[in-house]
Amino acid sequence: MEKTRIRVRKYAKLKAPIMIVGLPGIGSVGKMVAEHLIKELNAERIATLYSPHFPYQVIMLRHGGIRLMSNRFYVIRRSGRKEDIVILTGDTQAITPEGQYEVNHEIVRFFKEKLGGKFIYTLGGYSAPGSNPSNPKVYANATSAAVVAGLKDSGLVFGESRGTILGSAGMILGFAKMEHVDGICLMGESSFLDVDPYAAKAVLVFLSGRLGLNIDTKNLDKMIQKTAEALKELERQAPAEFPMPGKGDDKPPSYIR
Amino acid sequence: MEKTRIRVRKYAKLKAPIMIVGLPGIGSVGKMVAEHLIKELNAERIATLYSPHFPYQVIMLRHGGIRLMSNRFYVIRRSGRKEDIVILTGDTQAITPEGQYEVNHEIVRFFKEKLGGKFIYTLGGYSAPGSNPSNPKVYANATSAAVVAGLKDSGLVFGESRGTILGSAGMILGFAKMEHVDGICLMGESSFLDVDPYAAKAVLVFLSGRLGLNIDTKNLDKMIQKTAEALKELERQAPAEFPMPGKGDDKPPSYIR
Amino acid sequence: MEKTRIRVRKYAKLKAPIMIVGLPGIGSVGKMVAEHLIKELNAERIATLYSPHFPYQVIMLRHGGIRLMSNRFYVIRRSGRKEDIVILTGDTQAITPEGQYEVNHEIVRFFKEKLGGKFIYTLGGYSAPGSNPSNPKVYANATSAAVVAGLKDSGLVFGESRGTILGSAGMILGFAKMEHVDGICLMGESSFLDVDPYAAKAVLVFLSGRLGLNIDTKNLDKMIQKTAEALKELERQAPAEFPMPGKGDDKPPSYIR
Amino acid sequence: MEKTRIRVRKYAKLKAPIMIVGLPGIGSVGKMVAEHLIKELNAERIATLYSPHFPYQVIMLRHGGIRLMSNRFYVIRRSGRKEDIVILTGDTQAITPEGQYEVNHEIVRFFKEKLGGKFIYTLGGYSAPGSNPSNPKVYANATSAAVVAGLKDSGLVFGESRGTILGSAGMILGFAKMEHVDGICLMGESSFLDVDPYAAKAVLVFLSGRLGLNIDTKNLDKMIQKTAEALKELERQAPAEFPMPGKGDDKPPSYIR
Repeated sequence: MEKTRIRVRKYAKLKAPIMIVGLPGIGSVGKMVAEHLIKELNAERIATLYSPHFPYQVIMLRHGGIRLMSNRFYVIRRSGRKEDIVILTGDTQAITPEGQYEVNHEIVRFFKEKLGGKFIYTLGGYSAPGSNPSNPKVYANATSAAVVAGLKDSGLVFGESRGTILGSAGMILGFAKMEHVDGICLMGESSFLDVDPYAAKAVLVFLSGRLGLNIDTKNLDKMIQKTAEALKELERQAPAEFPMPGKGDDKPPSYIR
Repeated sequence: MEKTRIRVRKYAKLKAPIMIVGLPGIGSVGKMVAEHLIKELNAERIATLYSPHFPYQVIMLRHGGIRLMSNRFYVIRRSGRKEDIVILTGDTQAITPEGQYEVNHEIVRFFKEKLGGKFIYTLGGYSAPGSNPSNPKVYANATSAAVVAGLKDSGLVFGESRGTILGSAGMILGFAKMEHVDGICLMGESSFLDVDPYAAKAVLVFLSGRLGLNIDTKNLDKMIQKTAEALKELERQAPAEFPMPGKGDDKPPSYIR
Repeated sequence: MEKTRIRVRKYAKLKAPIMIVGLPGIGSVGKMVAEHLIKELNAERIATLYSPHFPYQVIMLRHGGIRLMSNRFYVIRRSGRKEDIVILTGDTQAITPEGQYEVNHEIVRFFKEKLGGKFIYTLGGYSAPGSNPSNPKVYANATSAAVVAGLKDSGLVFGESRGTILGSAGMILGFAKMEHVDGICLMGESSFLDVDPYAAKAVLVFLSGRLGLNIDTKNLDKMIQKTAEALKELERQAPAEFPMPGKGDDKPPSYIR
Repeated sequence: MEKTRIRVRKYAKLKAPIMIVGLPGIGSVGKMVAEHLIKELNAERIATLYSPHFPYQVIMLRHGGIRLMSNRFYVIRRSGRKEDIVILTGDTQAITPEGQYEVNHEIVRFFKEKLGGKFIYTLGGYSAPGSNPSNPKVYANATSAAVVAGLKDSGLVFGESRGTILGSAGMILGFAKMEHVDGICLMGESSFLDVDPYAAKAVLVFLSGRLGLNIDTKNLDKMIQKTAEALKELERQAPAEFPMPGKGDDKPPSYIR
């Protein structure tokens, strides 16, 4: 395998879909939210992305199977709403700079050209100096001034995050802008925990409201806490998070989890 | 040379071949078993794989010759059995992540498309906490539930190995699954020795029984011990094992030798 | 994105343009001069270069936007002079050796073939033993003996710089020579400051005189000092400079900033 | 520039040429011999090789010029002999494993297909335990048993060198074998000096005798000593030697200089 490839199980005819991207990163914020949504909303897998820029190893499954590392596209069909939802999650991000450019551009092209996608939410964490983990803000950066203006009263914090967004959460947004698809990166204020359910909850609450998702808010704290424990357990068993490739990491003035 | 290439000496017409893959790795388990089988069964070389993702050096031969680093395909023709055997061994694995994807996929495609291959055994080691090196188990992970079910009473240990399988032993299985060829990874329980003849013996005994190979079990201990000594001698002279490329190695929860 | 690409906003019909290249490097000499010229002369952006060999991150903008890392071409149209000016600056250089070859050759080809370019100035710094930072010389190396001869009485110091010129300042000149475009690298004598406005001023003064640019010399010291302070502030916020890729950096006998 | 390219100044019609390869490496043995031959025999340059796998820097020349790093082919036409001589030397070797495969194969293909080449000598150093630097042997490894047999009484030491030959001295020989061109690697016994004129002399004396080159043996010691001093001076000014890329270097049981 020399190029990133996406295997489609079946081509879903989707209504003007938006995509939620939650891939591994420090804090596991995006992945935790994506996996929570997939489970809660019974999302259906429609495609799998493989790449030679992923780690060169296979994952051992519980009952004696194996699988290649992958990113996976899920779908939630919605009645009574004008947009369906695509969720992207997976085992890893690309582990080289060139791989990040290839894989993330491929994801945007697939979403736009094959699924007819209209808007992208990428999820991550943001570490602000003196942040308060128990009541985290959601920082945001978007592809256009129009998106920022349209979310003026949403409670999102625009224009206070500084520096760069590393990896898929940033690059997918950059390629969305290049391909004229609007999008936004939602960053839960995070306090350097390996797994940060507080930041994940803040992002999930915003997304649920924004998309009219019927998720029981009362149970959220318990669920996220359980997810957090499960992820910690998983971490001992499987490589839930991969280190990002080297350059530019040395002294980041702030960073995405 | 910019791509992996396989030079075929002669196209053997093979009966529904299975392939045994024993390439270098920590412990040399796979390579030891593969070389033992080649010698004992007088296997014949049919093809050689070269790759720009191998180390950039040539091996000095005993009588003043040289050769490029390679992987090599051998054949054992079997009368009275319905399947022939292909053995793959060599000097090295690919030394970059992208190289691992290219070379291992190429191996699976060659085996399936050019040799008409039906099943793949990859060989390695597995380090379990508190393992007992003198009477090692053989852990296993397979491409499908059907393979696991078919080997229920074989003595193999399914579903107890955790984490990931690094390098060719894992990636070849992953690509086999992608290309709809069944296969299994046999991992001798290993205790961190550079060269582990105990783990190799456990794997060899299983394979011999499974494939009906006529290998003198009484002599096995002595042979493996001798192989082990020879490999240690070889190690001082030639690069029998190459370090695996970097990413993802940092804190593996368990690993393949 | 798998290849470097240049997006042209509009094809300017230019008069025999010369190009000034000021990209990030140690000391920020080139970038400081390029940004100063762009602001002072109201240069207009005509094209943007993206590359998979740039860092895999997006820059967060002040008002909540984002953009991919890029190099940018600006134009200054000049009445009463026979040559227009193109200025190239940007967020980063390529971060791998192969990337440096691809991006810098692409820049030279674009300038020659699409813009009809005639001459290239690359800007950097040079650290000489026992240098005097407060009154820095401008060292220079050119693509041909004719260029050197033509600048004999210009005050530039030829033939005293030793070693190699790393990165774009050197490679763009190398590819210019390969493509038969003349050019010169101007290196302000530098004293190892992270941001060196003295070296930048020396280069800017030479360029202004050479190109007949109407830049107020009296205000220059203040401006550069302010630029220096602004860059130091920016440094805390954004990755104005990227480390150069690894090989060959170990013991450079002298180097380009 | 994305691929290695060879620029031919003029296509020389050569008589069944042999090629001598002396590129940078530890000890500078090969480069020293190649440069000595080029100067002594007034060799004429016929082609230049550039590669994106070379270091990303240009060399500053004495009179204010610059040039890209390169490998260079020279020719010595011989009357009264049946073979002409091609000499390959240069500033560097490829700095990545994949680059080594691309560049060295390209060199062999160019020599065989464009120049009609018949035989290749690659030059290097070999460090044997307890070696005697003042009277060094010349170790050798060749592409075929026939070459070894034909040099039985030549004074070369076959079959005593162990391990691998790193970089161009080995890889060019490996690709020569693959392309059915015979060749040999001559390794001056070396004692870990940065610049080893003793090893260089041993190789040069053998080559001169073998090829019937008219080189004053009495002046050789002085010349090599001078070359050695000059190279040491050059080392302070220019990157005469580049470190080899990483993998496989860790614990070489022996190595090529």
